[in-house]
Amino acid sequence: MIVVKIGGGAGVNTDTICADIASRVTQGEQIVVVHGTSDAVNTLSERVGLPPRTLQSPQGHVSRYTDPDTLEVYTMAAAGQVNKTLVAKLQSLGVNAVGLSGVDGKLMVAKRKDAVRAIDPDTGRQRVVRDDYTGRVEQINAPLLELLIGAGYVPVIAPLAIGMECERLNVDGDRAAAQVAGALQADTLIILTNVPGLLAKFPDDSSLIKHIDGKDIERAIEIAGGRMKKKVLAAQEALELKVNRIVLADSRKSAPISAALAGEGTEITP
Amino acid sequence: MIVVKIGGGAGVNTDTICADIASRVTQGEQIVVVHGTSDAVNTLSERVGLPPRTLQSPQGHVSRYTDPDTLEVYTMAAAGQVNKTLVAKLQSLGVNAVGLSGVDGKLMVAKRKDAVRAIDPDTGRQRVVRDDYTGRVEQINAPLLELLIGAGYVPVIAPLAIGMECERLNVDGDRAAAQVAGALQADTLIILTNVPGLLAKFPDDSSLIKHIDGKDIERAIEIAGGRMKKKVLAAQEALELKVNRIVLADSRKSAPISAALAGEGTEITP
Repeated sequence: MIVVKIGGGAGVNTDTICADIASRVTQGEQIVVVHGTSDAVNTLSERVGLPPRTLQSPQGHVSRYTDPDTLEVYTMAAAGQVNKTLVAKLQSLGVNAVGLSGVDGKLMVAKRKDAVRAIDPDTGRQRVVRDDYTGRVEQINAPLLELLIGAGYVPVIAPLAIGMECERLNVDGDRAAAQVAGALQADTLIILTNVPGLLAKFPDDSSLIKHIDGKDIERAIEIAGGRMKKKVLAAQEALELKVNRIVLADSRKSAPISAALAGEGTEITP
Repeated sequence: MIVVKIGGGAGVNTDTICADIASRVTQGEQIVVVHGTSDAVNTLSERVGLPPRTLQSPQGHVSRYTDPDTLEVYTMAAAGQVNKTLVAKLQSLGVNAVGLSGVDGKLMVAKRKDAVRAIDPDTGRQRVVRDDYTGRVEQINAPLLELLIGAGYVPVIAPLAIGMECERLNVDGDRAAAQVAGALQADTLIILTNVPGLLAKFPDDSSLIKHIDGKDIERAIEIAGGRMKKKVLAAQEALELKVNRIVLADSRKSAPISAALAGEGTEITP
């Protein structure tokens, strides 16, 4: 069993990823897909006149400011456009994909912070934001996934979770994928992105770190910048959930999953 | 087993419908939900600067012109916003809802007309439209629904189907509900809308037709105007698929499903 996270950023080539999934599923491999949605949310936000806004925590973490209006846009892009486009593409390649979000059957339950401390970009002061609908996945309905997998379906999961009060929540797709891999006791979690893996000296591709041992993961988190930091944090979360291997790999090559399994990218093991 | 179609028009009160579903599911009734999406698609279309357009057939039927750009909007509104909002609302009421579209697991396979004859509103002349992604549901993946129902889930289905070439298709929600009811051999199909039922003299509520016998359905189709005509056509389709009872009922009252089952609205039987 492999969990594949398909990045939601611009430049991720879903055609080659889907073709690779199809060829592996045809050979009998069990695959579960979790996808991102950032580029689609940004595009739809602009189209409806709600330009994307971010929240910066006092620790420097940056995340999407998901107020109620943005949550609607997020839901439409994640569970509508990206999810159904991927499912239709996989179906056209003979993969019996079923798209789900975390809201469905409480597939992914997340915890929302009802008050978030953020730095105001204008004044530099801290303020408390109370209408951000972002959460962290804490629980996976593994029996629902197993029910579908057992009947021959390939689940394709959108990064939209359900909160403790049944509110919809924006969740990080990489961490959601880690939780899914952990809940299914997957052998491998492959996180596909649009860089070759973790680079010691970003953006120098020749500085790719080929392997990280679990005991060195804190150091890797320090090295990682930007979006890559969340991916290494997701890898750490997957290790804690007893996933045997995580690969941070490049989506831009042909057969990217097979390449990742063959040793390209950054491999992280316990 | 009851199939409930929740209208997608403005003015349909989903709060009371969901509360009624919750109380009936809690008492052990099996319910499958199919929903519409027209108001949400119109709203999103306006927001993104693609005002809704229609196609009028030479026979006078009017339908949404779903070109590729509109199909994206349709997908986001139907499978994203409306579907996940309903699922989260049902979950908050203790119903273990799972949202699906017809794309997922090929739940609803439809046939697209690749060339549609339409009347040009400006010239009154016929023209042939080749980029309309609208279809008619022809096949339901009943085993997928039965798998979920058997495990205690309540399927909530968006009116987005998959075509013969795995393209996404806009499909009529009422007819989709008829096909679902037929495939599941449901006892009753309830089509909830924002009028009391079929009115002999629209908009005179006191002219409600309480009962239609299968042999009189053609006459009822003639009487019905506007959106109601499609609902009566859907009822006819359900009768042909051996559904025992179809009720065209008002969603605007409290406990609208229970009211429909108790004899309010227009009942149609073989």
